[in-house]
Amino acid sequence: MKNTQILLKSRPNGMPLAENWHFNSQEIDEKSLSAGEFLIKTQFVSLDPAMRGWISDAKSYIAPVQIEEVMRASTAGEVISSQNADFPVGAKVVGMWGTQEYTISNGKGVSKVDTTHIPLSVYMGMLGGAGLTGYFGLLEVGKLKEGDTVLVSGAGGAVGMTVGQIAKIKGCKVVGIAGGKEKCDFVVNELGFDACIDYKSEDIKKMIRTHLPQGIDVYFDNVGGEILDIALAHIRRKARIVICGAISQYNNMQEMYAPKNYLSLLVNSASMEGFVIFDFAKDYTKGVIEMSKWILEGKLKYKEHFVKGLENFPNALQMLFKGENLGKLVLEI
Amino acid sequence: MKNTQILLKSRPNGMPLAENWHFNSQEIDEKSLSAGEFLIKTQFVSLDPAMRGWISDAKSYIAPVQIEEVMRASTAGEVISSQNADFPVGAKVVGMWGTQEYTISNGKGVSKVDTTHIPLSVYMGMLGGAGLTGYFGLLEVGKLKEGDTVLVSGAGGAVGMTVGQIAKIKGCKVVGIAGGKEKCDFVVNELGFDACIDYKSEDIKKMIRTHLPQGIDVYFDNVGGEILDIALAHIRRKARIVICGAISQYNNMQEMYAPKNYLSLLVNSASMEGFVIFDFAKDYTKGVIEMSKWILEGKLKYKEHFVKGLENFPNALQMLFKGENLGKLVLEI
Repeated sequence: MKNTQILLKSRPNGMPLAENWHFNSQEIDEKSLSAGEFLIKTQFVSLDPAMRGWISDAKSYIAPVQIEEVMRASTAGEVISSQNADFPVGAKVVGMWGTQEYTISNGKGVSKVDTTHIPLSVYMGMLGGAGLTGYFGLLEVGKLKEGDTVLVSGAGGAVGMTVGQIAKIKGCKVVGIAGGKEKCDFVVNELGFDACIDYKSEDIKKMIRTHLPQGIDVYFDNVGGEILDIALAHIRRKARIVICGAISQYNNMQEMYAPKNYLSLLVNSASMEGFVIFDFAKDYTKGVIEMSKWILEGKLKYKEHFVKGLENFPNALQMLFKGENLGKLVLEI
Repeated sequence: MKNTQILLKSRPNGMPLAENWHFNSQEIDEKSLSAGEFLIKTQFVSLDPAMRGWISDAKSYIAPVQIEEVMRASTAGEVISSQNADFPVGAKVVGMWGTQEYTISNGKGVSKVDTTHIPLSVYMGMLGGAGLTGYFGLLEVGKLKEGDTVLVSGAGGAVGMTVGQIAKIKGCKVVGIAGGKEKCDFVVNELGFDACIDYKSEDIKKMIRTHLPQGIDVYFDNVGGEILDIALAHIRRKARIVICGAISQYNNMQEMYAPKNYLSLLVNSASMEGFVIFDFAKDYTKGVIEMSKWILEGKLKYKEHFVKGLENFPNALQMLFKGENLGKLVLEI
């Protein structure tokens, strides 16, 4: 049996290109499973902005993907052969076995999920890394309180959508920032944000003052760059800025855009705090349970953007950095 | 009786110059005190970096000093005439009556202090704004824990000296950053810092790695600029950066030096938090009591740098920004 895998061929300089990836064909013998092992057929591969960091060799919170290593990714699939009674054939599973068609697992790092009411891919998105990032980032790092005013950038992306909807559930006023009318209309009309600023066509400063005249209590930053700097200039006393990402800067090979307005933290007695989702690993279950409940109650909506075919991985990854996805970007195998 | 006052004549462009101040002579009739009033003769005026912010008209945590208004300052003095039994002649008092030789007070915002064991000027320095800034900034904003590694810039100044000594009292490893051998030798030899980096003659990055090879848990920033950026690149997981000031940037009329390495907060799940001392007003007494105890036990040393004569206010203020003071800069009237 052939297992197509995507390996990192070389580290990108700026935007990851097709030439940075190597398609490898590996032999898998499904008859050779040892006791306790099972074979998973990948159905979905999650595409996340964090991937850009994983393929850089800069020191970070996790070791970089090595050259000729299978590209790290959150994944979801089905058990198709098994020597493990806990993971029988037909079981739906999620884990991080990387960008490949198949994997043999002994169960470590793999979880079974119940797809009766919630589709498999959602366990890898809103109930996976992206959703939990929004959940813990907003509630724990951002210390959200009822009545806060919340600004979230990347509002059309998987994390931003989760953040805005949770803030609404918690009784806050929420303004998103996204690129283009389609995304802005979606988060307002479908997800219930109070407003959304189209950074491609609107004056961000002016629109922040219009929608949040009293200033920002929590700014959830997915994009970095100038938008972070503008947000800093509009925070309220004791504001919390959550540094979740900086997608505008990940492929920037020039000098990093740095937040000139950081002294706004001083005069407003405010904070700017970074985090990675692994900080909250021991509480994942709590987050999944609460978000599942909201999903089933119809309070939290997921939106997925599927791209088909493992061969489209390089292009699909670029879509994230070009802002071409609306909702969680998922590669469907 | 003549009361010489220093009024703000114009807002400085960069460094505050002599031409920005106006010496005014006001008549005070000490015979005209109403019931409850008393006359204070100023003995000390505190010179603080925050003054640069107070004379700027940028939006901040406190209203700017207005043109032709007496320059705001922390002050200490003696009651020389009184119609208030709580503030008898001879009482030593501190308050914020501004840069002038005399003031008539009704007691509001003025506190009597006991100078039996601790000199009057110290109540305006280490037991006043500067010391309390270090105390609450380090312990509350910086959430200092025993065993933390602490880096403090402006180590030769009033706040930095307090921060480093309190961190030592709390069982931490402390490295200072200061300008010149005299300041560095002082904080190490007299105040017990573990090390001090002379930013004027040493490679700051290299010396941070030498003295704190495991990285920084708490960086207490008084200076901003490139030193903040270097510190960001050397923090540990869950580090806290306390934004107390940015003296290197206060007179910078070019573009602000912005921290390019702020994403270090993300990969290290770290925070950067600003504050102003007024945030802790309800706890001042607790801070003064604990620091007084440390002073009397010889664990916390104060160092003052006196400049004599109200007429020297403009030059003395510049000394702060030129880094010419060692310890708390005080104008002695």
